[in-house]
Amino acid sequence: MRLDIKQDLMELNNNQARENRRSFSEKKVLTLNMMGSPGAGKTSLLELLLGRFRGRLHAAVIEGDLATARDAERIAACGAPVVQINTNGGCHLDAKMIARELPGFDLDGLDLLIIENVGNLVCPAAFDLGEDLKLLVMSVAEGGDKPAKYPTAFLAASCAVVNKTDLLPYSDVDMAELRREIAEINPKLGIFETCCRPGKAEGVEGLAEYIIGLALEKKRG
Amino acid sequence: MRLDIKQDLMELNNNQARENRRSFSEKKVLTLNMMGSPGAGKTSLLELLLGRFRGRLHAAVIEGDLATARDAERIAACGAPVVQINTNGGCHLDAKMIARELPGFDLDGLDLLIIENVGNLVCPAAFDLGEDLKLLVMSVAEGGDKPAKYPTAFLAASCAVVNKTDLLPYSDVDMAELRREIAEINPKLGIFETCCRPGKAEGVEGLAEYIIGLALEKKRG
Repeated sequence: MRLDIKQDLMELNNNQARENRRSFSEKKVLTLNMMGSPGAGKTSLLELLLGRFRGRLHAAVIEGDLATARDAERIAACGAPVVQINTNGGCHLDAKMIARELPGFDLDGLDLLIIENVGNLVCPAAFDLGEDLKLLVMSVAEGGDKPAKYPTAFLAASCAVVNKTDLLPYSDVDMAELRREIAEINPKLGIFETCCRPGKAEGVEGLAEYIIGLALEKKRG
Repeated sequence: MRLDIKQDLMELNNNQARENRRSFSEKKVLTLNMMGSPGAGKTSLLELLLGRFRGRLHAAVIEGDLATARDAERIAACGAPVVQINTNGGCHLDAKMIARELPGFDLDGLDLLIIENVGNLVCPAAFDLGEDLKLLVMSVAEGGDKPAKYPTAFLAASCAVVNKTDLLPYSDVDMAELRREIAEINPKLGIFETCCRPGKAEGVEGLAEYIIGLALEKKRG
């Protein structure tokens, strides 16, 4: 009985996700669902990506958090249209929450919508928002055993970002070993290495170009 | 209707948690529910704590993870009785999962049971396991905005550990400011600062003594 109820909620979510996907498809807006643990560095990465997108494509952001508008304020300071969703304790965004916010965006004028999910390496992986792809962000400081211990997120993602590479000298993570661990869970996962610390930023350009490429491809349709 | 179903599941969990709490109370076993983001350093902290408990009290561990027995293997290497629960994608432990494992432990011979929950700063806070107190572990690398952004976990906890203090020089976290942020969410929260890196360990002794004190108090009961 518990399983039935769960499937019911999942079906509702999947139906709404399909509708969202149809809207994004009609408007040719590439949509990314960014997920990762609290403190993986998702918002910092987003700030740098938005800088790279400037003049190349029009991007907007939906921020998900249990509480506060802090992330949306940071994104707004980058000049991108942004809306903050507060889940009030909820552990993930769902398709309905996204649908509710879409009328606030000028989808005709957009090339890219990035949804930063609630910081959580488990639940967001299970809820389709209608996105084109899931981008997983993990921090070097989380340790190299995370792919094996949180396989559902690594399986659901199309692209993994290993962030905070500046912490490599102060952690036990061996990047080659971590890449092997990721490939063991999901061999198809593209992997980017980034650092977003002011003055030490690296690797963001490659990820930005990858996303720009996907967005332009979707625009050409 | 969705709310009713949720309350139903919550009630089932709360009933089982009450039973667990009765068992722990009868056997005078202090029980900690350790929660925090993936990679906060919960298992490393546990390894060092177990070393400190040796000869002072008898501790056992329940490890929760989506997959793998890696954490249980690390704890077993410390010589403590341990069992690994795999949630197979589930985002938290519940009271029933704990109850199922209790017959495997010699509760009469135990002073302390530490349950390391699934790495997740959201969901575990909502599920009572029958513990005496929740111990929240966060890493300096997660950044100083986590208390405000994940208030439910900080509200549910009795004690917060700020781990990986060796990363302070490489992060934007100001410890005094972080302490203020924590106190703003939950002024009653005891705060410990620890580092568990080999050769750089610090602050674990204070936390160990605090837990030993609580366990002995419960034993005298």
